[in-house]
Amino acid sequence: MSREIKSQNITYTEGEIAHEHRVQQNGHEAAILWFTGLSGAGKSTLAQAVEQALFKQGCHTYILDGDNIRFGLNRDLGFSPEDRTENIRRIGEVAKLMMDAGTICLTAFISPYIVDRKGARDITPEGKFIEVYTKCSLEECERRDPKGLYKKARSGEIPQFTGISAPYEAPENPELVVETDKNDLAACVQQVVDYLRERGIVKTD
Amino acid sequence: MSREIKSQNITYTEGEIAHEHRVQQNGHEAAILWFTGLSGAGKSTLAQAVEQALFKQGCHTYILDGDNIRFGLNRDLGFSPEDRTENIRRIGEVAKLMMDAGTICLTAFISPYIVDRKGARDITPEGKFIEVYTKCSLEECERRDPKGLYKKARSGEIPQFTGISAPYEAPENPELVVETDKNDLAACVQQVVDYLRERGIVKTD
Repeated sequence: MSREIKSQNITYTEGEIAHEHRVQQNGHEAAILWFTGLSGAGKSTLAQAVEQALFKQGCHTYILDGDNIRFGLNRDLGFSPEDRTENIRRIGEVAKLMMDAGTICLTAFISPYIVDRKGARDITPEGKFIEVYTKCSLEECERRDPKGLYKKARSGEIPQFTGISAPYEAPENPELVVETDKNDLAACVQQVVDYLRERGIVKTD
Repeated sequence: MSREIKSQNITYTEGEIAHEHRVQQNGHEAAILWFTGLSGAGKSTLAQAVEQALFKQGCHTYILDGDNIRFGLNRDLGFSPEDRTENIRRIGEVAKLMMDAGTICLTAFISPYIVDRKGARDITPEGKFIEVYTKCSLEECERRDPKGLYKKARSGEIPQFTGISAPYEAPENPELVVETDKNDLAACVQQVVDYLRERGIVKTD
């Protein structure tokens, strides 16, 4: 099908680049690492530390989180159940594109509903969606309260707050459970990276 | 600010990865190549051929087009003026994320409205948005009619068709004008790649 063309000083082939060629170029498999858990459980911290560890060994990575999604792609969405669902749907679609591009895409969102996470999993090629339940007791999350959100949720200033006034549906069968209230960050990062190595997604070196 | 951590067999740093480190890793600058033009002008063909040429020299690239956007992220959108605007807004946001990840992101959409393209440009860091006017006369596009869409538009089967029953607003000051009805594909690809080399986005080799 493909036709190799040589111009003055460029060469190209007609048609699309096969995903396997992107994987070969990068030297690792592409995947989605979907971190889910309560506010304050450590999703972003863990995702950033995992990304750093992967990046240091030459992987192509990117994090989708509230900072780059809520003020950009999803700035038209609020926190109603419908908007939360659409929020996660779009994040799932973008993560899939990033993954298709050869990237290990990490997403760090509470993503409280099982059905919404399943939606993201269902559009992703088999075996490429790795759900990382970032587990931490509500008590510990509320004690940490890094952004002061639990305090505002308890006072009623923030309505529909996950864990307080809105449900969090824990994963029933996640690929990984990382307990951030029982292990330190380094151990949690190690657990995720070890999993990726065992699965052959990144190289053991 | 950053703290280097060494665990058993991983190292990581707390915090985010700087964009410049992604650029260093890839060996080229990140950018958005925004192809705009009439249906049949050759946007997808040109974008694919440019991507192949860049990929062959080791660049990290990805194309956003109707195939991976209209049936995924934007499957809730139709072809009303409002939906076309939202379509391009989301594509601009995703291209920006891809660019932020270090990728040369190519987009291949008619994107007929100046204001919508300006919206995508405005959210992109200065100098990273390269508008490629894929120029081809309506007569030639209609003669090619690769998907039979012009025929359907003329018969009224497709309403609001750009160039026939809906406007196309040509770029006023694009970074590049590539004339696909005057030059062959190899020459058009060469023109785009030469521009990226001159701008220092990709290496001259």
